[in-house]
Amino acid sequence: MTRVRIDLFSSLDGYTAAPDGTSDNPMGEDWGPLTASYAATRTFREKVFGDDSGAGTTGIDEAYAAAFFTDVGAEIMGAAMFGLHVNADDPNWKGWWGDEPPFGCPVYVLTHSAPRPPIPMAGGTTFHFRTGAIEDVLAEAAVAADGLDVRVGGGIRTARAFLRAGLVDDLHVGIAPIVLGRGNRVWDDLRGLELTHTVTSEVAESGTIHVTFRR
Amino acid sequence: MTRVRIDLFSSLDGYTAAPDGTSDNPMGEDWGPLTASYAATRTFREKVFGDDSGAGTTGIDEAYAAAFFTDVGAEIMGAAMFGLHVNADDPNWKGWWGDEPPFGCPVYVLTHSAPRPPIPMAGGTTFHFRTGAIEDVLAEAAVAADGLDVRVGGGIRTARAFLRAGLVDDLHVGIAPIVLGRGNRVWDDLRGLELTHTVTSEVAESGTIHVTFRR
Repeated sequence: MTRVRIDLFSSLDGYTAAPDGTSDNPMGEDWGPLTASYAATRTFREKVFGDDSGAGTTGIDEAYAAAFFTDVGAEIMGAAMFGLHVNADDPNWKGWWGDEPPFGCPVYVLTHSAPRPPIPMAGGTTFHFRTGAIEDVLAEAAVAADGLDVRVGGGIRTARAFLRAGLVDDLHVGIAPIVLGRGNRVWDDLRGLELTHTVTSEVAESGTIHVTFRR
Repeated sequence: MTRVRIDLFSSLDGYTAAPDGTSDNPMGEDWGPLTASYAATRTFREKVFGDDSGAGTTGIDEAYAAAFFTDVGAEIMGAAMFGLHVNADDPNWKGWWGDEPPFGCPVYVLTHSAPRPPIPMAGGTTFHFRTGAIEDVLAEAAVAADGLDVRVGGGIRTARAFLRAGLVDDLHVGIAPIVLGRGNRVWDDLRGLELTHTVTSEVAESGTIHVTFRR
């Protein structure tokens, strides 16, 4: 049965990196420290960086990284995460995920701008652009997922919109043991999330605290 | 050798309860959920609630609770934590910690109001009132601690002032697995604290995440 999943990165003080909107370093300078333990895993090295040497960590972080890529049948993301705003006037701009994005499934991009046709990419990813309510986009994505899960990929405002609307079954937050003191706030407007979900936590060898909300 | 210690409670979203300034429920309604796992420990039941039946949890939370009361030779707290503002005009007001406060050592209360004489209490606690710089009060407390530790008890603004000034050797934060969405922010202005301290974390049976910064 389809579940709706979100994975987020947070610092101890509840921030995720603020994207700076440039394609050289789109996620901002704090993204590296925030995601370092994930980037070190065998799965991320292979799936995101194309390193098929088998190198990378294999502990608790790797278990979450592997799960991240398992059983996702459709993805939803905000326009900024696709990179729509970077070249907003170029109808041929295909986002900043490269020629073969690491999704391998339909990706629904939420946008307020004019509709544009779907963009099929190598590796099974097709970007679709939707302007409707998040509930409607989710319903379409759930059909497309065909029994697999729908992941709300981000950014943080998109994730919180789905959480606030009560649409998310599984939230995983990887909390890096660092204090950023700045960025986009992960947890705003989510008071009482522990009342509708069961919370469990474990600490990885890297020091990353993995917190999971599940209903 | 004297170390300077702080213990704090936080929610997952980085809030501690906002005191509401009434003596009926001085710590505010979120304080209970935030500290529930600590209040359930054998040590807290005995030391704070006077329950000497031996009841209470005995796991990881209890280990931190027992450490909380060990080797503290002097305490520093803000005026609000003493309760100074509740009866600011009453020179005979002895704070809201009761006839036998759970400190058992000299307690230095930071205040901007007029000096007042020390207040000796039952159980070895004496409240001293100081208007000087936090470095000077810490120096005096360290002498009084006589080789034991100095604990900065709170509130949160006092704790952050000592942390920002680089005066704290050990910070322990007990993170309750709840999202408060409101309160006083624990982590503000502490960017990079992990660069001067070593961070370790463990998850208690209760779900509380114990994060320790140590230098």
